[in-house]
Amino acid sequence: MNIIVLLTDFGGKDEYVGVMKGVINSINPEVKIVDLCHEIPPQNIIWAGYVLYKSYKYFPEETIFLCVVDPGVGTKREIIILRTDNYYFIAPDNGLLSLVYKNSKIKKTIRVNKDKFSLKPVSFTFHGRDIFAPIAGYLSKRKKIDSFGQQVQKIKIVNFPKPSFSKCEIKATVIHIDRFGNLITNLKKDEFQKLRWANFKIFIKNRIITEIVNCYAQDRDLVAVWESRDLLEIASPNSSAENILKAKVGDTLRIVKV
Amino acid sequence: MNIIVLLTDFGGKDEYVGVMKGVINSINPEVKIVDLCHEIPPQNIIWAGYVLYKSYKYFPEETIFLCVVDPGVGTKREIIILRTDNYYFIAPDNGLLSLVYKNSKIKKTIRVNKDKFSLKPVSFTFHGRDIFAPIAGYLSKRKKIDSFGQQVQKIKIVNFPKPSFSKCEIKATVIHIDRFGNLITNLKKDEFQKLRWANFKIFIKNRIITEIVNCYAQDRDLVAVWESRDLLEIASPNSSAENILKAKVGDTLRIVKV
Amino acid sequence: MNIIVLLTDFGGKDEYVGVMKGVINSINPEVKIVDLCHEIPPQNIIWAGYVLYKSYKYFPEETIFLCVVDPGVGTKREIIILRTDNYYFIAPDNGLLSLVYKNSKIKKTIRVNKDKFSLKPVSFTFHGRDIFAPIAGYLSKRKKIDSFGQQVQKIKIVNFPKPSFSKCEIKATVIHIDRFGNLITNLKKDEFQKLRWANFKIFIKNRIITEIVNCYAQDRDLVAVWESRDLLEIASPNSSAENILKAKVGDTLRIVKV
Repeated sequence: MNIIVLLTDFGGKDEYVGVMKGVINSINPEVKIVDLCHEIPPQNIIWAGYVLYKSYKYFPEETIFLCVVDPGVGTKREIIILRTDNYYFIAPDNGLLSLVYKNSKIKKTIRVNKDKFSLKPVSFTFHGRDIFAPIAGYLSKRKKIDSFGQQVQKIKIVNFPKPSFSKCEIKATVIHIDRFGNLITNLKKDEFQKLRWANFKIFIKNRIITEIVNCYAQDRDLVAVWESRDLLEIASPNSSAENILKAKVGDTLRIVKV
Repeated sequence: MNIIVLLTDFGGKDEYVGVMKGVINSINPEVKIVDLCHEIPPQNIIWAGYVLYKSYKYFPEETIFLCVVDPGVGTKREIIILRTDNYYFIAPDNGLLSLVYKNSKIKKTIRVNKDKFSLKPVSFTFHGRDIFAPIAGYLSKRKKIDSFGQQVQKIKIVNFPKPSFSKCEIKATVIHIDRFGNLITNLKKDEFQKLRWANFKIFIKNRIITEIVNCYAQDRDLVAVWESRDLLEIASPNSSAENILKAKVGDTLRIVKV
Repeated sequence: MNIIVLLTDFGGKDEYVGVMKGVINSINPEVKIVDLCHEIPPQNIIWAGYVLYKSYKYFPEETIFLCVVDPGVGTKREIIILRTDNYYFIAPDNGLLSLVYKNSKIKKTIRVNKDKFSLKPVSFTFHGRDIFAPIAGYLSKRKKIDSFGQQVQKIKIVNFPKPSFSKCEIKATVIHIDRFGNLITNLKKDEFQKLRWANFKIFIKNRIITEIVNCYAQDRDLVAVWESRDLLEIASPNSSAENILKAKVGDTLRIVKV
């Protein structure tokens, strides 16, 4: 049995996700649907793509990931299905699948014939319901991937925004703040560790942090850790770094070799 | 297999919805439960009813919709089960089911004997857990609808608040703001289109919009569209109309024929 | 078939809960997973424990409760599995299970060997994914509880913060505010009722309430009720007590015998 995993920016205020589940269940009443996250910041394709890339391997093989972060809804933007060695991914062709595409063994890429399986009439504002959900539903019923459209050789790629690196300084950016007020930056663990800096200082707002520790539970008000998606995170044990630093997405921090 | 679909104003801050699922699963461990929406604005029966009316047809036949937006919880207000040609609806008899009732083929309406299947003791503040969840659970086990209470001939009806229409002007109201900051009004597509106004201007706050476009992706900061529930919506491509206009629920807009 | 019930403070902003479901489904694709609540206030072990204690009995026997409110993630804090006469509970040994432990018939308490079933490598910041989810997954596949670790005789206990009682006055505290703006206090129904006070006044902010009524629907702007978890609650019919009183968690109220 496949699982369908949903990743959207639809939030919980509205019935949008619930209605998509209705459509999927109308096509395949037996399928299991799991919510990965619906609070991707509105239209943030980059973050959705990173979350997906860091999450998909935790799901069983043959899982179908349906990803709808779709500022181009209602336009002629394409929809793609990616078949990798182990998974299926459905998304608008807007760059959301870039990291999965670059880091997986791709077996087939299909540009969807959008009319073929859609509900009729198709709205201009809610393709999640009218086009995407039916694709996931039929795919979960083991309809052959080639029946959804034509094979293509490439997809739209967008790049994860890298920190700027100079000889003795890295400038990183806060790209996400989680529920705990943890500030998650765009600096990846492997990119930092290969620099082999023995000593460094992290400057954020008016504060300085001098080491990256393992876990949150420290006897200080502000720590730097590698978070579960392998990004540098500034956190506050038992409190909120967001509140303490009055930080917001887009703030920068500097890491300086000493 | 039936599906039970939940629609409430309980939100996610508390375990209220989770506990209802516990009660349902205790009665019918096999049933599939789908969340339609739990963030109906507190006690907003009108909006809950509209959301339900625009959503239910996307679910498989025989789905049971359990709707708990219930300011009268603990009073003598009645609970009803509506059996339409294709679906079951359970709700307080407070008007929530008005639109479904008026637009469906009704096969049977039951006023529930509230004591019969309830958990004991029944609390005065959480009938979702103590009365509603058991009804849905037993109904999903194919208990006959007549066993839940007495047949009645009518239910409480509340009216969807219409815009005011004059010869050359419509005054509509923002009745909901979604996660994207889209302003959703009470003007229905069919009611506007039958006026056949070739040219018109939409006045909202200090802004004027001169056409209703198909989709969000436009090269301007504010657009009017027919949203997925067929209501007039003011949106901002890649931004938030709520923020741009500092709008809130209850704001009015005028559409003037020119 | 077991059910796995999830209780965390992870919120919905991130994919943390979704990824845990991926891990569980990878181990046991057949298991049903139910969300009890994911918006426990960050690191609030006391409230999580009370919510769990008041909820678990509504679920079918043999349900597995996986509770992750875990400020000590990444440290040497232990993880325990509690086997009561009817249920399984998995949690950090930080006091979260105190009320369940004190009020259940305990059949076995296991201190988990954390390495045995964990994903490798284990992160320092997300044991929900790497350690807790695998335990729940394997337990739901009926792996014997003794295979998870060593039996122990006691767990860490933390106490629910009681009101202060004097001869003619009780000082209670607002410990939670729900989605409706209801103010939930730490005064338990049975503790108050055994005092048999015929007449009393409740002082909160600059307001006085003179009785505890049964249900919300009253013709006044502020009421006191026993809420569904048997705690004293201050509510506002059709409005929000939080807004009316500008109240917040930590505020106190006094109940004075007259």
